[in-house]
Amino acid sequence: MFKLIAFDADDTLWHNEPLFHATESQFAEMLSQYHSAEWVRDRLFATEMKNLGHFGYGIKGFILSMIESAIELTEGRVSGSEIQRVINWGHEMLLAPVDLLDGVRDTIEALAPSYRLMLLTKGDLFDQEAKLARSGLGEHFHAVEIVSKKDARTYSAILHRHAVAPEEFLMVGNSLKSDVLPAVEAGARAVHIPYELTWLHERVDESALLGKEFARLVSIRDLPEWLAAG
Amino acid sequence: MFKLIAFDADDTLWHNEPLFHATESQFAEMLSQYHSAEWVRDRLFATEMKNLGHFGYGIKGFILSMIESAIELTEGRVSGSEIQRVINWGHEMLLAPVDLLDGVRDTIEALAPSYRLMLLTKGDLFDQEAKLARSGLGEHFHAVEIVSKKDARTYSAILHRHAVAPEEFLMVGNSLKSDVLPAVEAGARAVHIPYELTWLHERVDESALLGKEFARLVSIRDLPEWLAAG
Repeated sequence: MFKLIAFDADDTLWHNEPLFHATESQFAEMLSQYHSAEWVRDRLFATEMKNLGHFGYGIKGFILSMIESAIELTEGRVSGSEIQRVINWGHEMLLAPVDLLDGVRDTIEALAPSYRLMLLTKGDLFDQEAKLARSGLGEHFHAVEIVSKKDARTYSAILHRHAVAPEEFLMVGNSLKSDVLPAVEAGARAVHIPYELTWLHERVDESALLGKEFARLVSIRDLPEWLAAG
Repeated sequence: MFKLIAFDADDTLWHNEPLFHATESQFAEMLSQYHSAEWVRDRLFATEMKNLGHFGYGIKGFILSMIESAIELTEGRVSGSEIQRVINWGHEMLLAPVDLLDGVRDTIEALAPSYRLMLLTKGDLFDQEAKLARSGLGEHFHAVEIVSKKDARTYSAILHRHAVAPEEFLMVGNSLKSDVLPAVEAGARAVHIPYELTWLHERVDESALLGKEFARLVSIRDLPEWLAAG
């Protein structure tokens, strides 16, 4: 019996990657007179990776990286009104409705009476808190941890802070790189629920999975049954 | 005897506001062909306040607000290379050395053996963690709480989470609005250590202080003696 079940947020509880993907498409369209969509996406990703160490994860850093890419890709010819469009996309992303994945509300409501549930997500603190508030799921979580990165040390620190032994802790998420592998490395258990899109930065080589023990489910709807079969 | 002493970070442990102030001056200088420095600062502040509800506190939101203001104040004529300059200031701010206030290291080192110390700051999670790491003070803090806002509810939640009664908790910080008044409202005690500059948004009307009980010290150096006299 798990003492604490932690859920990732973006693309585990609510849709997120499609929002970034759609904005990238608008961005590529805006710059289509200069470059192919593929090249725009490539350069944007390179800028995001260059900036990740300063900006961390989240929409604000993404918008700044788009602006920087737009200047680079147009050799400074991008107009003020085009930059304003990019900023407006950012505002829209920050205010976008929180769209829960199928089965999330039922599952969280079903588990909350029997388990201590935690929301455990990386990203922008302000943005993730706002999304949790808008999700209407806040009351079901005993704890919310918003961290700047998810590696094995992060998981160990959280286990320590909540006085839970690794084997009593279950991490549920869509990212092998952030949710599954580091939790397993910290001695905890993990359930992987793949999402339809994975950000390039979150992809892992299949070889990283060799020998790692974790479960994979098709939908969060299958989680109560998996737990009951324990 | 306090069970937990929490310190604000920006302009309490390390200098912060001068960095924003200096960048604002460069920004006003860049736009001086269009508007007076005073008008640029006014419009920038108005944009920051408009965006605070989406962006939260921190450097990334500040940079986005500068870009938005630059477009507005130049009616779209700002050039790509000028926008790039703004972004570069953001990178410089994010990488700026952490400059401790006078007496901070001595005081924190003096108190750490006798008290549980907490860093309690609002702002950008990623940015504040990076600054704490660069400050070299991290090992002295039993807990680090980075929150999206500091109101009385925030303080009550933190007291609850750390199982500390309000009267056993002391908040130390430079902001009456964020550090002193809401902590006092939550039943805790507070020490105000004014900083040479206060961001307009953090200023409070003197009338808000009426009847509120808290101590004011000139320097963090005076804190151990104040505690000993307690």
